[in-house]
Formats: sequence, C-alpha cells, structure tokens
Amino acid sequence: MTSRARLIGIDPGLRFTGWGVVDVDGNRLIHVADGVIATDGDEPVPARLCALYDALTALIQTHKPSEAAVEETYVNRNGSSTLKLGYARGVALLAPALEGLSVSEYGAMSVKRAVVGTGAATKDQVEMMVRRLLPTATIRRTDASDALAVAICHAHHRANTLRIEAGLQSALARAAGERR
Amino acid sequence: MTSRARLIGIDPGLRFTGWGVVDVDGNRLIHVADGVIATDGDEPVPARLCALYDALTALIQTHKPSEAAVEETYVNRNGSSTLKLGYARGVALLAPALEGLSVSEYGAMSVKRAVVGTGAATKDQVEMMVRRLLPTATIRRTDASDALAVAICHAHHRANTLRIEAGLQSALARAAGERR
Repeated sequence: MTSRARLIGIDPGLRFTGWGVVDVDGNRLIHVADGVIATDGDEPVPARLCALYDALTALIQTHKPSEAAVEETYVNRNGSSTLKLGYARGVALLAPALEGLSVSEYGAMSVKRAVVGTGAATKDQVEMMVRRLLPTATIRRTDASDALAVAICHAHHRANTLRIEAGLQSALARAAGERR
Repeated sequence: MTSRARLIGIDPGLRFTGWGVVDVDGNRLIHVADGVIATDGDEPVPARLCALYDALTALIQTHKPSEAAVEETYVNRNGSSTLKLGYARGVALLAPALEGLSVSEYGAMSVKRAVVGTGAATKDQVEMMVRRLLPTATIRRTDASDALAVAICHAHHRANTLRIEAGLQSALARAAGERR
C-alpha cells in the first residue's frame, strides 16, 4: 500500500448501483468520475446481474483503480428484497475481486462517520459533504454520492493504516538500533 | 428448445454450493456428474465469491450444459445470513448467464413437487427419489442431491413447455389447413 492510489467506491443495488472513482495522494482527494449503473426491471434477474457485472468490469478496465470499497447495504426486514440486494452486492464484490483489486467493505455508519463526522448523518448531509470534498463530482443520483462517500471512507481508513504501518516501521527501526 | 439437452442444477450457498449435471432425452434422464463447491470460511467474502464463480465457470466449460436451473434459496429470518445467501445466489445466477446459458429459477416447493410429488417432502425423501431416478449419482452431501433435484425439476418443466409448444404448433397447422 502506498500513499497514492486510485479507488473505486460502489453502492450496490439491483435497480441502481452507484459508483465513484477518486485519486488519493496523501491527504488530498481528487474526483475522477462518478455515475450510476441502472438495470432494466423488466429483464430477468440473471440478465440484470450480467448487465451489472459487465458495466462494473468495463468501468474498472477504463479507470484502472487498484482498490475497491463496497458499501454494506442496509439489511431491511423484507427477506425477498434483502436477497435481491444480496445478488447485486455479490456481483459488486465479485467484479473488482476478479479484476485483481483489493476489496474492502464498510457499513453505512462508518461511511457517514468518515464523511460527515457522525454516524447519525442524513443522506443530504452526506451528499453535501461529498460535493464539498469533491467539487467536480457530477452526482446525478444519490447512489453516486453514496459510492463516492464509501471511496472517501476507504481513503481515510487506508491513510490510518499507512500511518500505523509507518509508526510500526519506525518503532521497529528504533528497536533494532537500540539492540545494536 | 429441443427434447435433448444437458442441464446443470445449482443449489447455491456461500459455504457449500451443490451442483449436478444431467442429460435429458425426451422423458429419459441420464446422470452426468454431481458435486459440491466448498469455499473457505476463513477467507474474505470477495475471495470466496471468486472461488465460487471460478469453480462454476470451470464446471460449465467442462460439461457444456446448455441450460441452468438454480434453486430459490430459503429466505430465513436473519437478515445478515439472507444477505450472504444472496451473494452466493447472485454469483450462481451470473456465472451460467455469462457463459450464455438460459437460467431458470425454481422455488423449493416446486422442486419437491417435481421430484417427490408433494411440496411437503422432506430432504431425505428428495434425496431418496434423486438416487432412484439417477442411480449413478455420487451425492457426497445433500447440497448435491438438492442440485440434481432442481435439474430434474427443470427437465419436467421444459418437457411440459415442449408439449405445449408441440400442441400449439399442431393446432396452428390444423387451423391453417382448415382455412385453406
């Protein structure tokens, strides 16, 4: 893991899947692209999953991110719609993994906390902060802003991981120096 | 659709996915192969979905079925395990569709009715009937017998569809003859 990377955030759904690509360079975030993949509700589910898979794979091959972050979708009470959400999420986890990307998952609370500062933030607050952090983002639908939010969340987490790794490295180097 | 075809039945699950390949020739069913794909519970979910996808794709490329039938998995009360079932099922619907197979879905009740004659049949009754219909089946785990059962269910449904199509064709031919 280096401090520079291109990330893709994905907010999966069978009807609409939001996606957003950002470059991260140390603490800087640069918007690359965002959008929404829609599948036709009149098509059979396997065809819709193919459409979602093909679109995600094409996006990854076009923008060449090295890491993916997927939002852990809301588990609602209706078993049948949870199952459908599961199909879309399964494909959203599979497509980047098959392209060789590392794939991280973040719950909605973690995403809100990373972007707005509180896990109780509303959808509107998340979108407002995403627009402030990434002023060139298009965001035609909320799904795209949610996808950019999960990418931002991953950028924060990987920055912390890098800091911990760097701290560990220097502690190990110091310890090695003391032993010599 | 012709009366001869090779079918793959799939009973998806994140931990164990049963599969079974049968040839259908009119009313005859011939067992080709069956087995279970297991994924490592210690691996991250995206890696497990990749393993499942790769195994299903390899099976399809080896046995070359033209039609797939997937069991509509049981929707239980726990949202999180339903979601995980959804991931596996999404991949089980995607893999054959990407390989160009037609994909049909059958609920557990339809499968039991097709194999045993009643939707209230137990797992043991299903397995016993599958072993009777396909004496050369291996069936190391119940998942494989469930997968063969969904393939048998699809064989029955497509036979009915063929009969309806044939009936429609001869009725149309008769009607055309009467008009002449």
